[in-house]
Amino acid sequence: MRRSPTIADVARAAGVSKGTVSFALNDRPGVAPATKARILAAAEELGFRPSHRARALSHSRAFALGLVMARPPELLGADPFFPAFIAGVETELAEAGYALLLRVVTGGWEEEAEGYRRLAADGRVDGVFLTDLRVGTDPRLKLLTDLRLPAVTLQLPDADSPFPAVTLDERSGVSAVVEHLAGLGHRRIAHVAGPQEFVHGSGRRTAFREAMASLGLPPGAEVVGDFTAAGGATATRGLLASPEAPTALVYANDLMAIAGITVAHERGLRIPEDLSVTGFDDTELAGHVHPPLTTVRVDALGMGRAAARLLLHHVEQPVGGTADHVALPPAELVPRRSTAPPPRTPGTPASPPPLSPPPAPTAPEPGSPA
Amino acid sequence: MRRSPTIADVARAAGVSKGTVSFALNDRPGVAPATKARILAAAEELGFRPSHRARALSHSRAFALGLVMARPPELLGADPFFPAFIAGVETELAEAGYALLLRVVTGGWEEEAEGYRRLAADGRVDGVFLTDLRVGTDPRLKLLTDLRLPAVTLQLPDADSPFPAVTLDERSGVSAVVEHLAGLGHRRIAHVAGPQEFVHGSGRRTAFREAMASLGLPPGAEVVGDFTAAGGATATRGLLASPEAPTALVYANDLMAIAGITVAHERGLRIPEDLSVTGFDDTELAGHVHPPLTTVRVDALGMGRAAARLLLHHVEQPVGGTADHVALPPAELVPRRSTAPPPRTPGTPASPPPLSPPPAPTAPEPGSPA
Repeated sequence: MRRSPTIADVARAAGVSKGTVSFALNDRPGVAPATKARILAAAEELGFRPSHRARALSHSRAFALGLVMARPPELLGADPFFPAFIAGVETELAEAGYALLLRVVTGGWEEEAEGYRRLAADGRVDGVFLTDLRVGTDPRLKLLTDLRLPAVTLQLPDADSPFPAVTLDERSGVSAVVEHLAGLGHRRIAHVAGPQEFVHGSGRRTAFREAMASLGLPPGAEVVGDFTAAGGATATRGLLASPEAPTALVYANDLMAIAGITVAHERGLRIPEDLSVTGFDDTELAGHVHPPLTTVRVDALGMGRAAARLLLHHVEQPVGGTADHVALPPAELVPRRSTAPPPRTPGTPASPPPLSPPPAPTAPEPGSPA
Repeated sequence: MRRSPTIADVARAAGVSKGTVSFALNDRPGVAPATKARILAAAEELGFRPSHRARALSHSRAFALGLVMARPPELLGADPFFPAFIAGVETELAEAGYALLLRVVTGGWEEEAEGYRRLAADGRVDGVFLTDLRVGTDPRLKLLTDLRLPAVTLQLPDADSPFPAVTLDERSGVSAVVEHLAGLGHRRIAHVAGPQEFVHGSGRRTAFREAMASLGLPPGAEVVGDFTAAGGATATRGLLASPEAPTALVYANDLMAIAGITVAHERGLRIPEDLSVTGFDDTELAGHVHPPLTTVRVDALGMGRAAARLLLHHVEQPVGGTADHVALPPAELVPRRSTAPPPRTPGTPASPPPLSPPPAPTAPEPGSPA
């Protein structure tokens, strides 16, 4: 049986020292490009593959990245963003020989902080993904800085952050939705928001308000939901029961929007003839509900891939280096069939004018039946 | 600043040796119950918490469990079972101080096998969860046995397995669905199945066939889907286009069923008046679509919790020990509003008899208009 090739074999084949091989394979600076190419070719030819343990020992690295999620398990199970994001992360980590380590904490900030401290102290991960950023100063930024644990944030925190971020402009997606509805003739547009303690939930609401104001529309009604279907249903019932019910509902995610459509159906409202509805996420299901949902496309898989590439780059570079933010293409409106012009209201002439004959005058025409 | 308490502090406080403390804290046999209680009380009082590294060194354990998923990332992102299962696993692991290590492999069996080999060789995990069991002999059973990597399977494999399993009787759920539909009067019932290379997809189809046969119904049409909304829509179009279109559709998951309802709506069919539809999973959304979906409840969160408890027990017990299978409560029918009696078809008198007068005889009655 052939023994596995070692780093010494690669060094011999490439005519360099073992140290140079190590530098080249780990993308450290100081190896001439031609030399590096020769080393990589030799490693490839020999089928050399550094073992995890050997790599970890020589680098003091865990070759794993962490994701700590502070959510009730029930909410996690209903979130369509999370599995797509994880799938994107995994695609990149698998190629790089890294593993993803998941922790879910449910007991508040102290438990969450302890989760990060243990990951750092145990040397289990080389860096972490920060998702669900909190509005204001997210306490994890200071904690991870103190722990010297590299991180990448999803979106930019409100406060100064020492960490590179993967950004995706969600505001332009919300603006596009409001402009789309205003262009159809809607003026009474309401928003079912996500949880306001998070940058994503709060940011989408701010974008909604700004878009309404910039179009000269009156401020829309707002209800804060929790991103679940049940929460979306409750919020919709409240909005539709108000005396000046909106003609269009802008939801902060698809799940709440789909549940909202059902509530509207149950009240005898037709979508989109009586009520327009929009979502946010463009989950796989959004195009397969009745009617297909006008929504905003957010590339969760792409965010996962980009965040993983950025964090890998960040943890593999020499100490003290920095990494730049990575901006993904902005969120886009995906118009489908859940949006249409608002219903005619009494006193508001429809445009174009109706094709039916004008109503008969009060006095009967001569010769007509009584 | 107070230093962290050590195992020696606990031993001193409890009046035992450090070895006894270690045995007691790790549930090894041979410590008298009263002694163990005293040690646990002392550890609790002192706030003693063994570090990951110390535990790992003294036990040669990683204190992590692994989950390798062989799926395209796109499919992973659309699967509602996965995040709920993971959330359940995490709930238990967090309590036990274990981490969950995720790998996603997309390149076929060789890549998947290599994924397990690396996990085992690197000592990154103490055991793994086997999900998505393959029909016939799942090659992972032998691989993990050879690698001496403990495992827990979700459901029982077709072949002999050396591993404990978490089982949940899905068949009774499918039977209950078919009985429910037959009880409403349906005879032409079709099945949109999941991928047949997996035990879950194949098992649900077999259960459908057996339930139809045991009720004396003619074999139903079957189309194999892929568990995605798009796949469910395509399968539904095929079934509804057939000359003898079914009056009820039994889907192997909720996502395909929800997409199927939309296809039916687009063809002008009313649910449930013209077509009954059932799902499988009871995802959060199932109760919030229009009409709310009759489905089968599978406790994915509970499966995650049970699988984690079982695997923890399995990896923490003395070498050579075994663990028993754990059976969860069977899948249950959740009747909602997407199922109703089938529409009347020509030549089939409805029951109860119609209230309208019988059709006029061919010869005109005397005195009737010509």
